[in-house]
Amino acid sequence: MVRGRICRLLVRDVRFPTSLGGHGSDAMREAQREREHKQGELEREKQASCGAGSPMRRWIPGPWDHDLSRRQTLNDCATQHTDPDYSAAYVVLETDAEDGLKGYGLTFTLGKGTEVVVCAVNALAHHVLNKDLRDIVGDFRGFYRQLTSDGQLRWIGPEKGVVHLATAALLNAVWDLWAKQEGKPLWKLLVDMDPRELLSCIDFRYITDVLTEEEAYEILQKGQVGKKEREGQMLMHGYPAYTTSCAWLGYSDDTLKQLCTEALKDGWTRFKVKVGADLQDDIRRCRLIRNMIGPEKTLMMDANQRWDVPEAVEWMSKLAEFKPLWIEEPTSPDDILGHAAISEALVPLGIGIATGEQCHNRVIFKQLLQAKALQFLQIDSCRLGSVNENLSVLLMAKKFEIPVCPHAGGVGLCELVQHLIIFDFISISASLENRMCEYVNHLHEHFRYPVVIKKASYMPPKDAGYSTEMKEESVKKHQYPHGEVWKKLLAAQEN
Amino acid sequence: MVRGRICRLLVRDVRFPTSLGGHGSDAMREAQREREHKQGELEREKQASCGAGSPMRRWIPGPWDHDLSRRQTLNDCATQHTDPDYSAAYVVLETDAEDGLKGYGLTFTLGKGTEVVVCAVNALAHHVLNKDLRDIVGDFRGFYRQLTSDGQLRWIGPEKGVVHLATAALLNAVWDLWAKQEGKPLWKLLVDMDPRELLSCIDFRYITDVLTEEEAYEILQKGQVGKKEREGQMLMHGYPAYTTSCAWLGYSDDTLKQLCTEALKDGWTRFKVKVGADLQDDIRRCRLIRNMIGPEKTLMMDANQRWDVPEAVEWMSKLAEFKPLWIEEPTSPDDILGHAAISEALVPLGIGIATGEQCHNRVIFKQLLQAKALQFLQIDSCRLGSVNENLSVLLMAKKFEIPVCPHAGGVGLCELVQHLIIFDFISISASLENRMCEYVNHLHEHFRYPVVIKKASYMPPKDAGYSTEMKEESVKKHQYPHGEVWKKLLAAQEN
Repeated sequence: MVRGRICRLLVRDVRFPTSLGGHGSDAMREAQREREHKQGELEREKQASCGAGSPMRRWIPGPWDHDLSRRQTLNDCATQHTDPDYSAAYVVLETDAEDGLKGYGLTFTLGKGTEVVVCAVNALAHHVLNKDLRDIVGDFRGFYRQLTSDGQLRWIGPEKGVVHLATAALLNAVWDLWAKQEGKPLWKLLVDMDPRELLSCIDFRYITDVLTEEEAYEILQKGQVGKKEREGQMLMHGYPAYTTSCAWLGYSDDTLKQLCTEALKDGWTRFKVKVGADLQDDIRRCRLIRNMIGPEKTLMMDANQRWDVPEAVEWMSKLAEFKPLWIEEPTSPDDILGHAAISEALVPLGIGIATGEQCHNRVIFKQLLQAKALQFLQIDSCRLGSVNENLSVLLMAKKFEIPVCPHAGGVGLCELVQHLIIFDFISISASLENRMCEYVNHLHEHFRYPVVIKKASYMPPKDAGYSTEMKEESVKKHQYPHGEVWKKLLAAQEN
Repeated sequence: MVRGRICRLLVRDVRFPTSLGGHGSDAMREAQREREHKQGELEREKQASCGAGSPMRRWIPGPWDHDLSRRQTLNDCATQHTDPDYSAAYVVLETDAEDGLKGYGLTFTLGKGTEVVVCAVNALAHHVLNKDLRDIVGDFRGFYRQLTSDGQLRWIGPEKGVVHLATAALLNAVWDLWAKQEGKPLWKLLVDMDPRELLSCIDFRYITDVLTEEEAYEILQKGQVGKKEREGQMLMHGYPAYTTSCAWLGYSDDTLKQLCTEALKDGWTRFKVKVGADLQDDIRRCRLIRNMIGPEKTLMMDANQRWDVPEAVEWMSKLAEFKPLWIEEPTSPDDILGHAAISEALVPLGIGIATGEQCHNRVIFKQLLQAKALQFLQIDSCRLGSVNENLSVLLMAKKFEIPVCPHAGGVGLCELVQHLIIFDFISISASLENRMCEYVNHLHEHFRYPVVIKKASYMPPKDAGYSTEMKEESVKKHQYPHGEVWKKLLAAQEN
């Protein structure tokens, strides 16, 4: 079924000005805002940044030269918000198969820096272009290794940060194309795949001390039992979700109350609140939301890496009375031993540790599991090396019996990750205990196959592909900086 | 003394075609070469890559579009070597102080991908431009935090990979400028600085569970004792070095013998050999070099991340007979617990673990120390966030009494890191036991203030600054892709 040589690769910088509404605001971003306010930065940077801005704007052959003595235009300043502009480096692959099918892939970003990821996609493009799709998926492990171990590019990773985000965008597009050619939604492609073929997509380098290919095979073999029933269960009831849409740090108490009331009416039973900027504020907000949802419903907290290790333990001890199921990202995502220490202190208080959205590869997840540093593992569809690397993490989580509760939100993350977690339930975990997938009600209208939420659950996508395709009109409008939306915003900024 | 507003920031992509001589070849790069050979990649990619190439070449407003149906030029193919082209994203800062002083900074790369780092420097530039140098160094901790915690850019790091390399290049330039304005070589600026001022340059976020500012202060206070004598000792004898120039994987046995003979004549007593591609080959090469240098001199081995954890232990057990002081980078640089396991297995065989050149920030180093995962810590002047972050690592290493043996080589790394290790000896470690700094005899001729090696030791630089400035002629010639050297190579490739 798989066919065609990849003959075109298009990558675009798409940004949504979400910062205008305070959506997505968390402790880390609040800290940045304070810092800039304190230093009177905003004013001065507005001026200074105009020499810098996005390199996509000002093409100077050879070196880049920011010279303030020359006249500068003001319209690169729009990305000076301290709040996130949910964005994506958006990749489109075309083949010569003449079947009209394209592969769409993205990686999520927060605005500034999207152009850097776009640049990295370009640097990787030669690994993809002119390849036969059959050769790629026929040796997907080899192809993955080729992308992530390029002899020269490896230095600026390896398998982390910008190059790994770019790898994710590219491979997400390949998976979308593959699923479309097979005429299946991605989760179904994975569910129907022979275990050996699934494993041939995974690079086991650096994780064999914890999971060998044979162990992974055994896990998948066991997962065959009851698969049909679980698929039926998913199609009928969907995968349970929780909502982060009620309690961003930037929202007022009134907004929070209103959103919470609406969410309860819509059947939501699991809620996440952002914490970490100010303890008294957190106590007030957590009390408010706990009172609104009652003692039985589930509350989670998210600190977005705001604390050092001792601070995390101290702060959360003071929020324990509100019975959070977990504290998410209490400290640096790189700090495996730190998470282990926090976990050791907080689990006795009934609080689990969740992390993952900024864990940069399978090696970090491997260690978090080895060190008993988390009780909830949050995969991300766009930070790890696409489906390939996420498969290895799902299998390791199964081995350690740690529930996977994916990170979603942003732009497109819900659309993508639902496929992975539905597959996880059907073929690997076979359990819904303590499991749920994040949901945020933003930006779905820009996707051609948006998520369908029913009774606070993700309903399995039915369209072929990875649900990665954006509406062309949305992409055009939001392309940075020349799309209509940005042209207007940048012009307004200038006045 | 410090003066001037930063009014210009120039960043250039400078590449040296070192791959032509097999210099810098190691197990990871050999693996890449094998892989490509096996897949008959080289031929096919030569064609395919031409649609990708460097984004610095082909400016398309808005999105990037690689369309193979359009005619492509062939001259973007030169970076298809599997061997490294030692390169740098090279930053120059100018102020309005009218003193003629500029700040030069770089981060090291391996060729492809330098343009991505350049792009990231551009994305960070607005944090630097228009700033008063007094304000920067007066609150260097705050400035560091601002660069590394930009509310939007943070997502594509944080503090790792491309954005952190870009941060290093920028801050290295700031330190060079500061030292020049003070009229001192960087090591001397640091040695003379008040401990409180030194500490005000460090961001302690995420490491306070291991090192508080007060503990760091005590370490620096203790370091005051005998400082003058140690400074005299350095000026007289220099800091001990070891050489990696004899035994790259790409060298023949004859070349190895010849280089080793010359190095012995020049007084070198410590040698590093690359291993990890083929065990029998390693045994032959290690025997050869051990026989040449004799039992008393020091031999180190470097696997450049080639192995998984069990493989590392097995492989090194078979090389133990050659008495290596350390095995460097046995596995993934992210694998703290893996290094701890390897360390536990190999230390009883008399082999220490060394790592650091790809450890992406202080949080990783913190854990390597906590987990007893290394016996030798290898800082890098260009991967961590410049002097600021390296200071925190030097202080943590002192607390754990682990010797620091910096990574150098590449292009410029020797020039920069010598300042850090000389400062470390004078003000922090006060010891030379088991300590030495890597040296590679490449590309120094391109620097305006090249390293001076005497009797296998780094002699302390005497010129003001961080020794980061390249000769303008060299930069011009090697600028990618429009410099004279690359124009010729790319033209040759085309024929």
